[in-house]
Amino acid sequence: MSQEVQQGQHMGRASIRLEKPVYIISSASIVGTKEGEGPLGLLFDMIGSDDMFGCNTWEEAESSLQKDAVYLALEKAGVDKNQVSYIFAGDLLGQSIATSFGISTYEIPLLGVYGACSTCGESLTLGAMSIAGGFAEKVVCVTSSHFASAEKEFRFPLEYGNQRPLSATWTVTGSGAFVLSSERDGIAEGCPASGNGAYGRARARIMGMTVGKIVDFGLKDSMNMGACMAPAAADTLVQHFMDWGSQPSDYDKIVTGDLGTVGQRVLLDLLKEKGYDVSDRHMDCGIEIFDADTQDTHAGGSGCGCSAVTLSAYILKQVEEGNWKRVLFMPTGALLSKTSFNEGQSVPGIAHAVVIEHIA
Amino acid sequence: MSQEVQQGQHMGRASIRLEKPVYIISSASIVGTKEGEGPLGLLFDMIGSDDMFGCNTWEEAESSLQKDAVYLALEKAGVDKNQVSYIFAGDLLGQSIATSFGISTYEIPLLGVYGACSTCGESLTLGAMSIAGGFAEKVVCVTSSHFASAEKEFRFPLEYGNQRPLSATWTVTGSGAFVLSSERDGIAEGCPASGNGAYGRARARIMGMTVGKIVDFGLKDSMNMGACMAPAAADTLVQHFMDWGSQPSDYDKIVTGDLGTVGQRVLLDLLKEKGYDVSDRHMDCGIEIFDADTQDTHAGGSGCGCSAVTLSAYILKQVEEGNWKRVLFMPTGALLSKTSFNEGQSVPGIAHAVVIEHIA
Repeated sequence: MSQEVQQGQHMGRASIRLEKPVYIISSASIVGTKEGEGPLGLLFDMIGSDDMFGCNTWEEAESSLQKDAVYLALEKAGVDKNQVSYIFAGDLLGQSIATSFGISTYEIPLLGVYGACSTCGESLTLGAMSIAGGFAEKVVCVTSSHFASAEKEFRFPLEYGNQRPLSATWTVTGSGAFVLSSERDGIAEGCPASGNGAYGRARARIMGMTVGKIVDFGLKDSMNMGACMAPAAADTLVQHFMDWGSQPSDYDKIVTGDLGTVGQRVLLDLLKEKGYDVSDRHMDCGIEIFDADTQDTHAGGSGCGCSAVTLSAYILKQVEEGNWKRVLFMPTGALLSKTSFNEGQSVPGIAHAVVIEHIA
Repeated sequence: MSQEVQQGQHMGRASIRLEKPVYIISSASIVGTKEGEGPLGLLFDMIGSDDMFGCNTWEEAESSLQKDAVYLALEKAGVDKNQVSYIFAGDLLGQSIATSFGISTYEIPLLGVYGACSTCGESLTLGAMSIAGGFAEKVVCVTSSHFASAEKEFRFPLEYGNQRPLSATWTVTGSGAFVLSSERDGIAEGCPASGNGAYGRARARIMGMTVGKIVDFGLKDSMNMGACMAPAAADTLVQHFMDWGSQPSDYDKIVTGDLGTVGQRVLLDLLKEKGYDVSDRHMDCGIEIFDADTQDTHAGGSGCGCSAVTLSAYILKQVEEGNWKRVLFMPTGALLSKTSFNEGQSVPGIAHAVVIEHIA
């Protein structure tokens, strides 16, 4: 990466390079049965035996996912909820009710965020900002999605048994929570599940962020959200390279959230037009989380929970073990609602990128 | 205000005191016809001749409110959109579509926020944090609501002509936008509409924030949101006094967002139980914006736009003119959706407080 880049905090059009890194001292992932049966199944902290998680409604089930993910992440870090200054949280449901009814028992000051399926990236961005700015020592970032609550919110009642085109993605049932800290040594030693960082020290840190803008190519097919979001992913990625003076080879992995197979193709094509080839290091959480051939998920997984649980269960572990030294984690969001869709609006996209590094 | 309080950035449980203030260099307000006919009518920058604002749907109309409010606020400050690092924006609609389709043309990196009707306070909190932390020089904060889109989203189609109980509030049609800056002298001199600060200098600044947590008293009446939100307002206010070591008399006005007459009574009673009397300096934007006797708005105005336009058009002007030296601005939000309501959930509340001061 170019050494010419100014080391100031705000740089370029949309990027922040942190003068002092923010440490990811623990994380947790909870998923539904289908995700548990997928290729990453063995990596998740908890897998539900059914997708109701002991609740009466899908929305309550999604709330319980957020609650349990936060609980586990705090436990792993040995951090008490009273040590957490703020919680940055969101989900896909109207008025973010999975969050409102999921995390209230923690009584942690809440800053609710919404960026559709990019919300995990947004919550990490704002969480890291609040710590790096000196406004907090520890924060929690949590996001979730649930297949059944999302189908109800955006598409058809499950009872319809509607057919899905091959470009459609399958909303992940899951929640991922992250504890960020200003100090690397924030993890309780001797804690039975001592966070992601063994030996009481975090082994992953956030070095900076690139905040995405809304990108609208005019696509209107909510059954092909990968194609709707890919232009935003390309835009944020090119902006990131420009702002940071970096190039694809500076990252061991460039990870999008839920473009799926169709969106991935669009992204790689758009980037080639701009002179970037990331095909040898691009990874999409939506493609990783399901086995499309055997799980009938078509283009891949999606949702606020998809990138969050994949980051917690898979990506962070690779970073912490040093297999990947630097990763660009960039969840993507499709900014639609059933109202905007029914009124004939397009499906704009947005993507937020976070630079995550291994600490030796 | 006690001088014992630590001057660090993060203080107490949930509060931030800014070491370097953040300046509100301009703001703008756009409202619908009913708001224009209310007591504050003469103060708004723009009043629509009807509530469609030249659009085909209410949602589009709300989007156009955000777009125009941002345009006006930037114009007043003489700030180009390319000088703005981030926009913190939100609204009440599912998946924040008023924002998604309102501000995309500016191509400013977006951080979407959701705090129901407290969103204006949340956007100012995060915007001020991003500047004070050194991550941006200028940001825009914008929120909106629209009576017709909100009724459709939360209650009944307007065509039903349903009766509203006297405890109900009337969602304000309006949007308020604010340009925050790290520099007081950011306003273009000689600009025909030279922002809120005449002579090219801002006359209002943000000194700190208290982030609210979810407070749920178990109330379930979405037609009495004032009562649902008042406990959260009381909680944030008491937390603020404790964190800052301050008391009611340190503020010329303590302003809530949209408690209305019923919620105001609950707030004052709850605070008295905690030993605080703010009755001589409490003001509620929802009570100010309509004349309940002649406008048939019952308990008052509400919505993300209510506190935003009242802050821009009325409160900030009083602060800038020095009539009020220090104000605690605390919008309140009711965290419900039609799904959570229909599933029998309660209506939890949240409130975020921002300390705004006059600069001589």
